Amino acid sequence: MTETTLRVNAARLMSDVRRLGAIGADPGGGMTRLAFTADDVAGRAYVTRLMEDAGLTVEVDAAGNLIGRREGRNGDAPALVLGSHIDTVIQGGAYDGAYGVLAGIEVARTLAEEGIALDHPLAVVAFCNEEGARGTMGMWGSHAFAGVLPPGAAHQVDEHGVTIADLLRSVGGDADLLDGAAWTPGSIAAYFELHVEQGGVLESLDVPIGVVESIIGRVNVSVTVEGVAGHAGTTPMEQRVDALVAAARLIEAVRSIAAEERLVLRATAGTITVDPGMWNVIPGRVRLGVEFRDASTVNMDLATDRLVGIARRVEQDSGVRVTVEAGARTEPVGCEPELQELIAKAAAEHGYLSHHLPSGAGHDAQIVARIAPIGMIFVPSAGGVSHAPTEYTAPHHLAQGADVLLSAVLKKDKIS
Amino acid sequence: MTETTLRVNAARLMSDVRRLGAIGADPGGGMTRLAFTADDVAGRAYVTRLMEDAGLTVEVDAAGNLIGRREGRNGDAPALVLGSHIDTVIQGGAYDGAYGVLAGIEVARTLAEEGIALDHPLAVVAFCNEEGARGTMGMWGSHAFAGVLPPGAAHQVDEHGVTIADLLRSVGGDADLLDGAAWTPGSIAAYFELHVEQGGVLESLDVPIGVVESIIGRVNVSVTVEGVAGHAGTTPMEQRVDALVAAARLIEAVRSIAAEERLVLRATAGTITVDPGMWNVIPGRVRLGVEFRDASTVNMDLATDRLVGIARRVEQDSGVRVTVEAGARTEPVGCEPELQELIAKAAAEHGYLSHHLPSGAGHDAQIVARIAPIGMIFVPSAGGVSHAPTEYTAPHHLAQGADVLLSAVLKKDKIS
Repeated sequence: MTETTLRVNAARLMSDVRRLGAIGADPGGGMTRLAFTADDVAGRAYVTRLMEDAGLTVEVDAAGNLIGRREGRNGDAPALVLGSHIDTVIQGGAYDGAYGVLAGIEVARTLAEEGIALDHPLAVVAFCNEEGARGTMGMWGSHAFAGVLPPGAAHQVDEHGVTIADLLRSVGGDADLLDGAAWTPGSIAAYFELHVEQGGVLESLDVPIGVVESIIGRVNVSVTVEGVAGHAGTTPMEQRVDALVAAARLIEAVRSIAAEERLVLRATAGTITVDPGMWNVIPGRVRLGVEFRDASTVNMDLATDRLVGIARRVEQDSGVRVTVEAGARTEPVGCEPELQELIAKAAAEHGYLSHHLPSGAGHDAQIVARIAPIGMIFVPSAGGVSHAPTEYTAPHHLAQGADVLLSAVLKKDKIS
Repeated sequence: MTETTLRVNAARLMSDVRRLGAIGADPGGGMTRLAFTADDVAGRAYVTRLMEDAGLTVEVDAAGNLIGRREGRNGDAPALVLGSHIDTVIQGGAYDGAYGVLAGIEVARTLAEEGIALDHPLAVVAFCNEEGARGTMGMWGSHAFAGVLPPGAAHQVDEHGVTIADLLRSVGGDADLLDGAAWTPGSIAAYFELHVEQGGVLESLDVPIGVVESIIGRVNVSVTVEGVAGHAGTTPMEQRVDALVAAARLIEAVRSIAAEERLVLRATAGTITVDPGMWNVIPGRVRLGVEFRDASTVNMDLATDRLVGIARRVEQDSGVRVTVEAGARTEPVGCEPELQELIAKAAAEHGYLSHHLPSGAGHDAQIVARIAPIGMIFVPSAGGVSHAPTEYTAPHHLAQGADVLLSAVLKKDKIS
């Protein structure tokens, strides 16, 4: 059996997904396994046992990351790291994060069973608190892993006023030793993250394997439209300066900037408030919460500038005043071209169709990218749904994704 | 001096407006003289004194309406009634309502000074609780006056849980005798209400006198747009069913139904809410609060039907589901053509320009219309503003409106 046709044990992987998914099942639907809770601790214990059974040496770093290691034949070689997370949002699904960790373990288990030794050391990592439990900083563990935690991060508190330092203790971390959790640039040959797509592209194309080109960035843009509030009965239409009517043009413009003009991949107006917000009063002020996402920083800026230009035209046409303010920003991160190629090739050798696409959601990989080349593999999400009880990926897709991860590891081990 | 050139004492009227306006002055700006409060009682005492000084016989009916009467030469003739209200909203202005009552008193005072006896009895009425203080039923007093109070109205409670029956006692009313407050159809020859426009039409035309053609009706229309919530990063633009983008088209359609298609006089979307209302989630559901106003019931229905038609098109184009539900409704009320003519003639004889227009706001007149022919006179509101501390009408406009009211009374007295 050559390495390109070697496959994981799909039934075993499915069994692991189901069992981990039973820990933290929410009576209201889906699963709630927030980081640092008793359910998270129970989930980590289950994963620890799986890692040990796979022949991995398990440790918990100071940031609470759960790491299973396997030596390589070349003691000096940088590691191949397979990671994701096992914490969930409130009433989330069983696949987001957990699938990547369990598939990583399944890869290690398959290698052990087949008696395959790698040149490189292998590490499977369950990053701590990717989702940002109870208002804490998300991607916590991967920030520590990459050595890029913001100063004083451990002193931040959650919604209940508990510090991260205190929360860390429940999972075996130690806030005083966080620097020790950082891996050095050069210590990792490749980081692979296998994840459910959380969007509907692969499903709509009927393709099982997504080769992620980039994790797209985001800029939040606050739009405020100032009109003139007035009596909805006594103010003739031609005397109105209606903030909501003007905002309606901007909502459509936001959509158009992505859908028609294609300046960015995604553009969304997700929030809107109106003052005074009464049936019989002409809206005087509207606030819109807009975001643009793209794989290119330049495009994100172009989209923001374009919205400003449209706002100026709306001002001239309708007499409102519009302010457009760019706020919080996450930079896009590219996936290593060599790893994209290797993933695509692995899929082809298995006979699985693959499709290159950007990741619209954030992942630990984008943090690890600060110190290592990253490769991401997607499998289809039914209906594009995630972070919800109805999150689902078909068993054959889970198996195919893990097969590609296994092959990608073997390929990368050979060529570097 | 003929009756068409007889004028009121403008300085005296202004003084009354200023003095009444000092009662209930709000430290936060404007005036807060809510019905049934100590300030309302003080305002009523001031008006009572003015009525008595004008030679009127004052009574408070069971509904709390303050009525000053003057006998006519013909004991059997139906009355000429001049009315409005003196209560205000929170931080309202000094003109809305109060001006009409004080001008009515000024008319009576001028007649008394000039020794002019009318054939018809004259009554000046300050209707109780026009504004609907603290969540109570507005136009309370005029409903009782017209004998059209809904059953059990006196048992309703305000926001503090106090019944109208209890509140009535503070102004000398009696909930057990409400039937006695009703005037019979035929007992009123004409009801005149002089009021500030509360809109900007007269000011924009630079015309001092408005001849009200009708008090326009209103229908509230609830619009719900159901789309599909989704991840703003992972969902491609072409896979979205964005409820807010669809709602934006409906907001513009509402405006257009009045401003372009001219199906109704006014159309407003005043409220909007979005679910889930997060920056990074595609809007799944939007609710819009819409109202259409017109002098014709048929037009109000046409506008609603038109919105339903546009909603069907939006559904087809974008995949959302839209429900359009007509709710609370106030029927339009026409002003008596004979009284409109007579008001326009009175203005012309004074040399004041006049303009026919609908009233976009509600008034006690629309309730009194159930039992009597009504005529309404408007004077300009600076900037179209009312129900706000900046509500203002220039002194010469106040005088001109009262002059026209006086002349209209004299004319109507002659011809009927």
